[in-house]
Amino acid sequence: MTINKNCIIRLSRYKNALYRLKNLGFVKVFSDNLADAVGVLPSQVRKDFSLFGLTGNRRGGYNIDELIESLGNILGKDKVHEVIVVGAGNIGTALMNYKGFEQEGINLVACFDIDPAKQKKASGMPVFPLEELKDFVKQRSVRIGIIAVPDIAAQQVLDIMISAGIKGILNFAPIRLRGPEDLVVNNINVELELENVIYFVNALRKTRGK
Amino acid sequence: MTINKNCIIRLSRYKNALYRLKNLGFVKVFSDNLADAVGVLPSQVRKDFSLFGLTGNRRGGYNIDELIESLGNILGKDKVHEVIVVGAGNIGTALMNYKGFEQEGINLVACFDIDPAKQKKASGMPVFPLEELKDFVKQRSVRIGIIAVPDIAAQQVLDIMISAGIKGILNFAPIRLRGPEDLVVNNINVELELENVIYFVNALRKTRGK
Repeated sequence: MTINKNCIIRLSRYKNALYRLKNLGFVKVFSDNLADAVGVLPSQVRKDFSLFGLTGNRRGGYNIDELIESLGNILGKDKVHEVIVVGAGNIGTALMNYKGFEQEGINLVACFDIDPAKQKKASGMPVFPLEELKDFVKQRSVRIGIIAVPDIAAQQVLDIMISAGIKGILNFAPIRLRGPEDLVVNNINVELELENVIYFVNALRKTRGK
Repeated sequence: MTINKNCIIRLSRYKNALYRLKNLGFVKVFSDNLADAVGVLPSQVRKDFSLFGLTGNRRGGYNIDELIESLGNILGKDKVHEVIVVGAGNIGTALMNYKGFEQEGINLVACFDIDPAKQKKASGMPVFPLEELKDFVKQRSVRIGIIAVPDIAAQQVLDIMISAGIKGILNFAPIRLRGPEDLVVNNINVELELENVIYFVNALRKTRGK
């Protein structure tokens, strides 16, 4: 069974939609409800669920609490994952201030930065010198890290993180990172996504001759 | 000719890679250089470029300055695009403080928030009450907006933005937004991407029985 990235992204989306439906008072859901909330076909929902042995009942649907728990187990939500951040700039600071990770079992434990000024203005979370990253990561066996440094520093930061034992990266630097084959890297590039929106808005306008 | 999102994303990546190569002193580049920098096959680079009539010379490669200019024209970089932000929380503030948009021809002109406290702590950029969004957007003919509000507020904010004339959205709220068919929406979901990294790191570890 090969599970691809898009499938896992959908599972996360189902889980988030389930939280919202639960907050609305739902006790059961049907694949149609989830499909609608996430923007896929109901058959896709059933296919994704059957891949992981999640079964509902065509008439009664899925029990929300059970489904949330099962998805949580699949996605590794049953335990807390420690994550470090490198770069205490705009993005790093926003992430450190964000309160929503904890409920997802994600614990941002420390931030690292080369800039002594940024090391001082810790906002609720410790910001350590970059040289301390390796010992910290090794000691606590942290496996996941976020790169929020400028593009010119990103590869060097990644190399340090890998040598410390980091296995998965969420990368905000607008550059293609190079690492070993078993390194998991997801990229978020805000400028690129915004440029993309602008391009398609302009393209649609031109199509209509406005 | 249909241009898809991935193709435009690649063009943006080529452009960013070209800036970096230019900073390194390059005057000419080959499709192989760009392919390497972006992580695609050289044939993909040539295919993307030929779609837009960009031609190089197999021996001499592409002239970097000409290529940057051409890509800029295609991506609408020849003019400045005004963008508004809704939500002056962690993400909104990070975006407002970010200095890199301007060089990309993206001008974040204003932020809107329902919270009077956030309206006060404007950090270099004006933060207006949400009620003023509609007039502002209409008056300045802004077409692009960023949604950086909590998920429960996102759809309502989107409806206001659409009624004001916004045609393209970069959405940070972890929810599927509903709008007219010609609305361009790109989503960035930090939690989802991080969860995804965690899932695959764990999955790889299990595969190896560690």
